[in-house]
Amino acid sequence: MSIDAQDFKVPAGKTIRLKNYDSGWLPKWAKQEKRKDLKQQALALLEENRQKLISEQELLWASDTYAMLIILQGMDAAGKDSTIRHVMSGVNPQGCRVTSFKTPSTEELKHNFLWRHIKVLPERGSIGIFNRSYYEDVLIVKVRPEIFAKQKLPPIKNKALFWEQRYEDINLLERHLTRGGTLVLKFYLHISKKEQKKRLLKRLENPDKAWKFSLTDIEERSKWPEYEKVYEEMLNKTSTEWAPWYVVPADRKWVAHAVISDVITSEIEKLNLKYPVLSETQKEALAKAKAELEKE
Amino acid sequence: MSIDAQDFKVPAGKTIRLKNYDSGWLPKWAKQEKRKDLKQQALALLEENRQKLISEQELLWASDTYAMLIILQGMDAAGKDSTIRHVMSGVNPQGCRVTSFKTPSTEELKHNFLWRHIKVLPERGSIGIFNRSYYEDVLIVKVRPEIFAKQKLPPIKNKALFWEQRYEDINLLERHLTRGGTLVLKFYLHISKKEQKKRLLKRLENPDKAWKFSLTDIEERSKWPEYEKVYEEMLNKTSTEWAPWYVVPADRKWVAHAVISDVITSEIEKLNLKYPVLSETQKEALAKAKAELEKE
Repeated sequence: MSIDAQDFKVPAGKTIRLKNYDSGWLPKWAKQEKRKDLKQQALALLEENRQKLISEQELLWASDTYAMLIILQGMDAAGKDSTIRHVMSGVNPQGCRVTSFKTPSTEELKHNFLWRHIKVLPERGSIGIFNRSYYEDVLIVKVRPEIFAKQKLPPIKNKALFWEQRYEDINLLERHLTRGGTLVLKFYLHISKKEQKKRLLKRLENPDKAWKFSLTDIEERSKWPEYEKVYEEMLNKTSTEWAPWYVVPADRKWVAHAVISDVITSEIEKLNLKYPVLSETQKEALAKAKAELEKE
Repeated sequence: MSIDAQDFKVPAGKTIRLKNYDSGWLPKWAKQEKRKDLKQQALALLEENRQKLISEQELLWASDTYAMLIILQGMDAAGKDSTIRHVMSGVNPQGCRVTSFKTPSTEELKHNFLWRHIKVLPERGSIGIFNRSYYEDVLIVKVRPEIFAKQKLPPIKNKALFWEQRYEDINLLERHLTRGGTLVLKFYLHISKKEQKKRLLKRLENPDKAWKFSLTDIEERSKWPEYEKVYEEMLNKTSTEWAPWYVVPADRKWVAHAVISDVITSEIEKLNLKYPVLSETQKEALAKAKAELEKE
């Protein structure tokens, strides 16, 4: 049983509409089944993928040639944190680093928008997860002029061109990364406005979750159509051959986790990672070391 | 069933001898039992602790007041990597960061020895794991003059005083950290020379593990007595009230994992972490947000 990741991939160079992606999508492989069975199967698939990912991570580390960058974007309460917890919890924390990008510091604002993200890119052999990313610089920064103003840019003559160049800068950074061996996977967690409402209310009603609630969530929610527009533009402008976006149906968390884990696992498997093969010289040196140890 | 962590703690201000710590130690609670049962019980304890740690980590993150720094030191093949994999794999990678300190870069050598470690200390709410640490600067750096020379220090008049001051700098850094809310836990993975030989040979014999073998391991091994001496001195000089060392019996990995997980879990539980309590003003604001959402 598997999921066809191609269904969620935003094709490079084509224009998609978000409304054509169903945030409440359910796997086809079980149309006949009861909802409960379906969820059990999705959880089984997630578990299977987690086990695969654990082995692949070991190989990624051992072969020390590739890195993996996973970018998670989505509206508030779309499930970014829970995706990290459920999809990545099995991996060895040595070799996996999560960075959550919050409001930039004064120092960070003094630099180009990519700077703070580049500093924490995953090194060879390891997995980096960006919980939000430089894509915020074409999302919230585009929607909120007061946040844009903080970047204190030189005068902009042509606003449309300015944003085009930002998308281009991002695409070229990602091309540079993939050229150097970083696999870049980008997930947009797609939820409906109705589902967000349900989740925000749940946060507010659960005393152990209320601390996660931020009053700005309500404010951002009031700009839903603007956000939908900039997300759509982001997907269309930055889904490339080398670093595609996946629009993940996220109204059900277990569906989102199964889809994301499936894309990650199948993409890393395509790298066809192997344990390093020793050269003859290395083998000789090791044989000598072994002899020395044994005669002790 | 539990392990008494006090048995392994190096008492502050007292002088211990490493030879009095049994690297092959077995838990008392099962003296009558067969070896296999004992291992099963240790694995069950590890699993129980991992589950506790997962909840405590969530609280650590939510309460956003404390951090935890775990330092792992030990001879080559003492089991540092496998400890991270087995003890920490359950935790949410968001909020846990492992740093493995390798040979310092030219830039790092231009700074004081603590600099590169301070840069990556865990932030509030999160767990930081140092796989090796600034303690290497009183271990390998003390044993190998050619490595010491690379630090290019101003002329040293009194060598003994110089090392005393290094221990002091470390102790005062750790006191500073604990004052700011970082729980500092330090584990020395104690293996016998015989067990190291067994593990190095195993690495050499397993093609999937040979890449982990480094020829310098053999060279370092030849200096075993010097290393034992500097480890002992490190334990005596830097086990403090605020940041104690634990000498972990590590000839059996499952014993080491059970002991370390038990210390970590019991120490973090002592912090008595709670979900944040909302103030009246916050409650009112959330109630207003809830009303707004509901009337949509």
